[in-house]
Amino acid sequence: MKIAFIGLGHMGSPMARNLLKAGHTLHVYDVIQSSIDHAVSAGATAEKSVRAAVSEAELVITMLPSSPHVRSVYLGEEGVLANVAREVPLVDSSTIDPHTARDVAALAAKQGNPMADAPVSGGTGGAEAATLTFMVGATRDLFNQIQPVLAQMGKNIVHCGDSGNGQVAKICNNMLLAISMIGVAEAMSLGVALGIDAKVLAGILNTSSGRCWSSDTYNPYPGVMEGVPASRGYTGGFGADLMLKDLGLASDAARQSRQPIALGASAQQLYQMLSSQGFGGQDFSAIIKLFQKS
Amino acid sequence: MKIAFIGLGHMGSPMARNLLKAGHTLHVYDVIQSSIDHAVSAGATAEKSVRAAVSEAELVITMLPSSPHVRSVYLGEEGVLANVAREVPLVDSSTIDPHTARDVAALAAKQGNPMADAPVSGGTGGAEAATLTFMVGATRDLFNQIQPVLAQMGKNIVHCGDSGNGQVAKICNNMLLAISMIGVAEAMSLGVALGIDAKVLAGILNTSSGRCWSSDTYNPYPGVMEGVPASRGYTGGFGADLMLKDLGLASDAARQSRQPIALGASAQQLYQMLSSQGFGGQDFSAIIKLFQKS
Amino acid sequence: MKIAFIGLGHMGSPMARNLLKAGHTLHVYDVIQSSIDHAVSAGATAEKSVRAAVSEAELVITMLPSSPHVRSVYLGEEGVLANVAREVPLVDSSTIDPHTARDVAALAAKQGNPMADAPVSGGTGGAEAATLTFMVGATRDLFNQIQPVLAQMGKNIVHCGDSGNGQVAKICNNMLLAISMIGVAEAMSLGVALGIDAKVLAGILNTSSGRCWSSDTYNPYPGVMEGVPASRGYTGGFGADLMLKDLGLASDAARQSRQPIALGASAQQLYQMLSSQGFGGQDFSAIIKLFQKS
Amino acid sequence: MKIAFIGLGHMGSPMARNLLKAGHTLHVYDVIQSSIDHAVSAGATAEKSVRAAVSEAELVITMLPSSPHVRSVYLGEEGVLANVAREVPLVDSSTIDPHTARDVAALAAKQGNPMADAPVSGGTGGAEAATLTFMVGATRDLFNQIQPVLAQMGKNIVHCGDSGNGQVAKICNNMLLAISMIGVAEAMSLGVALGIDAKVLAGILNTSSGRCWSSDTYNPYPGVMEGVPASRGYTGGFGADLMLKDLGLASDAARQSRQPIALGASAQQLYQMLSSQGFGGQDFSAIIKLFQKS
Repeated sequence: MKIAFIGLGHMGSPMARNLLKAGHTLHVYDVIQSSIDHAVSAGATAEKSVRAAVSEAELVITMLPSSPHVRSVYLGEEGVLANVAREVPLVDSSTIDPHTARDVAALAAKQGNPMADAPVSGGTGGAEAATLTFMVGATRDLFNQIQPVLAQMGKNIVHCGDSGNGQVAKICNNMLLAISMIGVAEAMSLGVALGIDAKVLAGILNTSSGRCWSSDTYNPYPGVMEGVPASRGYTGGFGADLMLKDLGLASDAARQSRQPIALGASAQQLYQMLSSQGFGGQDFSAIIKLFQKS
Repeated sequence: MKIAFIGLGHMGSPMARNLLKAGHTLHVYDVIQSSIDHAVSAGATAEKSVRAAVSEAELVITMLPSSPHVRSVYLGEEGVLANVAREVPLVDSSTIDPHTARDVAALAAKQGNPMADAPVSGGTGGAEAATLTFMVGATRDLFNQIQPVLAQMGKNIVHCGDSGNGQVAKICNNMLLAISMIGVAEAMSLGVALGIDAKVLAGILNTSSGRCWSSDTYNPYPGVMEGVPASRGYTGGFGADLMLKDLGLASDAARQSRQPIALGASAQQLYQMLSSQGFGGQDFSAIIKLFQKS
Repeated sequence: MKIAFIGLGHMGSPMARNLLKAGHTLHVYDVIQSSIDHAVSAGATAEKSVRAAVSEAELVITMLPSSPHVRSVYLGEEGVLANVAREVPLVDSSTIDPHTARDVAALAAKQGNPMADAPVSGGTGGAEAATLTFMVGATRDLFNQIQPVLAQMGKNIVHCGDSGNGQVAKICNNMLLAISMIGVAEAMSLGVALGIDAKVLAGILNTSSGRCWSSDTYNPYPGVMEGVPASRGYTGGFGADLMLKDLGLASDAARQSRQPIALGASAQQLYQMLSSQGFGGQDFSAIIKLFQKS
Repeated sequence: MKIAFIGLGHMGSPMARNLLKAGHTLHVYDVIQSSIDHAVSAGATAEKSVRAAVSEAELVITMLPSSPHVRSVYLGEEGVLANVAREVPLVDSSTIDPHTARDVAALAAKQGNPMADAPVSGGTGGAEAATLTFMVGATRDLFNQIQPVLAQMGKNIVHCGDSGNGQVAKICNNMLLAISMIGVAEAMSLGVALGIDAKVLAGILNTSSGRCWSSDTYNPYPGVMEGVPASRGYTGGFGADLMLKDLGLASDAARQSRQPIALGASAQQLYQMLSSQGFGGQDFSAIIKLFQKS
């Protein structure tokens, strides 16, 4: 299939390579020339504008850093909507606020282009190994249409309901993830301060009602698990500043929908404190630093 | 074995019955006569004082509501330590603060009685079905000695380390449980406010990094799961006021060990608000009421 | 002076009347016809568009509900910038986020119109009595130029620095106000629960280091002061939902400037809870309801 | 008057000296010999036990670090109650929890000794200058009886109601103080991050509804005020760890009276974080460090 792929950052680049491996023709665009060169060396065709990239595309995929970028790439005079052929499906894999996702999708639908929001989880590792989870907000028809292509970049392709619901699922999951990660960090730190062995405590939590992904798969306490960021100085993994961005999206969405989020808002502030103390580039499990003696 | 069992409340009564079923001789004491009568009808021998209950016991088990009760029952002039034979092992299954547990155990050890703290989780249902989890703080020798008897009242008998560590494990687990339950309540409420279907969202959380016991086994959103308190008006289960008590133990222990617990402290206040609004008698998953429009 | 006044809501209407009393000629515009009629009956000239209102103005004053309204009224094709004469000063008294205030002011400056942000505090009572406080973000020259007119609508006209700083001052003040109001609500409720008389406690706070405007001028505990909303069922005053809006501006600005605000974010969530429980229309001191037994 | 003075720490020593200056005869006791020597050099008579100090006293004053010390000094076999003459008034100036204060006072009353709790504020500076504030929980008769002596050590002698209410007033005031100090720290930090000058912002807060003691008398932002800890590296003043202790008393009292304190509990955790990061010995306005880039 002839695919326009716009946005070749840390996540977009390996995703594009997996599409090339699957045999698609890719027309790529990014504002950074070296990212384009990289994709060209993997077999893609470089384009000098969004307009050029989408003009003959049968499918458009975008992977952009924030809501204003999505608005600009899709709605600008030289953007996707003004230059893509009618009926071509559009897939935005950026993580942005649900309201923007729905606004842009509604404008696309109005001119005859079905559009899906399909944010991912799984990190750069998942992007390279094609094991990403896609959380898709789209009509059932559009979901069925794009599912095979997404499956070439990921393992779990989940239909979350109509437009915007992919974003909703992602920010709700990540808010809960942040809260439970901080909860594990507090519980492990408190337990050790009170005299229990860290591995013994983790073992108990993992078989009790405190069990969660942050305790049994990604424990933040150093030395409890192997192969997780906590065992290698909080390098790699999912950056604290990316979690902070997602918590910002959650609190913004909560504000707009007039929904209280007590612990979610506190989690956002704790991640902001961690970032202000200079640890924003570390894995998000480094939040445990706030609960340990310095 | 000749066992003294002191404290026959909601949890203690079914635990005592399971020991009787297992063939032990029970000498029971409680301040409420009807509780004693109930145990007698199941085969126990009633005693009129702690002193009388423990004087010929080969093992003492207590199940009391709070730290002051434990101090009084063990350390009072008419209490356990003053009247039990040397070398008889003592097991306190109350949920209390680790400092008190360690203080009393140290006094017991000093006079030759090995003592374990062994708080439980699993609720009255688990007590009746003999499927409780015991979190045991004791020496390895004492643990091996009492393990067979505890196994007649429960399914998972976990050695958490030395004296007090059973309490540490319990309050850390329950603090994490409260935090993740509130996290699920916030994430589910926010998601639905933003337009996603509750069951779809729960399905995504349960297979993603937000996964936790509160989402996949005890979801607080009405209608998402069957057989949980949320599906029957938040009746049954683990009471919000009991969770509030455990969060009080956690914050107290954190204060004494000078350990910050940001979300744990907020969770305590949210449960206090729920209780002040009149819902302390409902299941602890009713915390979701704070995040829904009234 | 020939003044264009755009936005005749609860605050704008009495402000416009005070300008008429001071002898100015007013050309007014609002989307609600009855608001215009009301102003006309006080001596203003009705206009059918922003364009018509500003075309001959020597000064433009706007009082609008939110940032998107300000963008639209100033930057739209039929808006202020496209239709006002060069060098005419522009004063926006809306409470909006500082970034928008600075963006719009920069565009205005570019085409030769000096622009000030001048949000107010003092409520509708202050607007009617011409006792408002204006917090002004503007160059020193512009401040000197507009100060006499603002003084006809208010009592304290404060220069907060350059463009946007009026908004900064307002949202910082109101965030601190929300925090200290909640602090007073908690301290008074706790004290009374512990057995002290409410008036005695207020008297001590007001002469000690806990002293603040929320305790000595606007005490939220019923019966402590006369003439405040707490003494009349939390009617009148500054609405809880308006405080919630300002806390949203504060948290949004904090997020954009990557600044942690721990208690500010919690205050926002507590006001959202109050609003979700149906009390958003009451005075903001009604937050004490969250800390009292129901 | 013949006064027994027990507890000669940082606060007790200067208080005792002021009583000597006023012409009283002092019999002093402390566990630290150098503290006793110091008092002796100022004219006091050293005693080797609580018993000896109180045996001929006409008034007993104590200044102790915590509730367990108060229990021990008053209720121990060699303590105040067992050795003081009947009808001699007892004044405890320690800052402790209200429940303990009431328990001890009730036992004292039972044997005929009227007892007051009279915690102070004003710091060591106030203790030396005899400008302390005493918050007194006592019957009206006892208050009238001890007021003249307290006035020799302080400036404001406030009757807060019956037994325990001195402690209630103190912990409520200090909880509110902590909350408003953090509020000022957040508001000042946010404002400066958004571009306003710190002194300009402080000036606006101090004349607006955000006004509070922490902003107008003790501003935590460096350079805004002279003569406050923020202008000298957060040395001197009221230590962060002392504030943390008082917040612990407040949260403990709130828990026992089942009263929610949302921001109070968060303030406690923020001060615990500050302390864990090594700043517990600095003035409590150093909390602003948590809100500034490192």
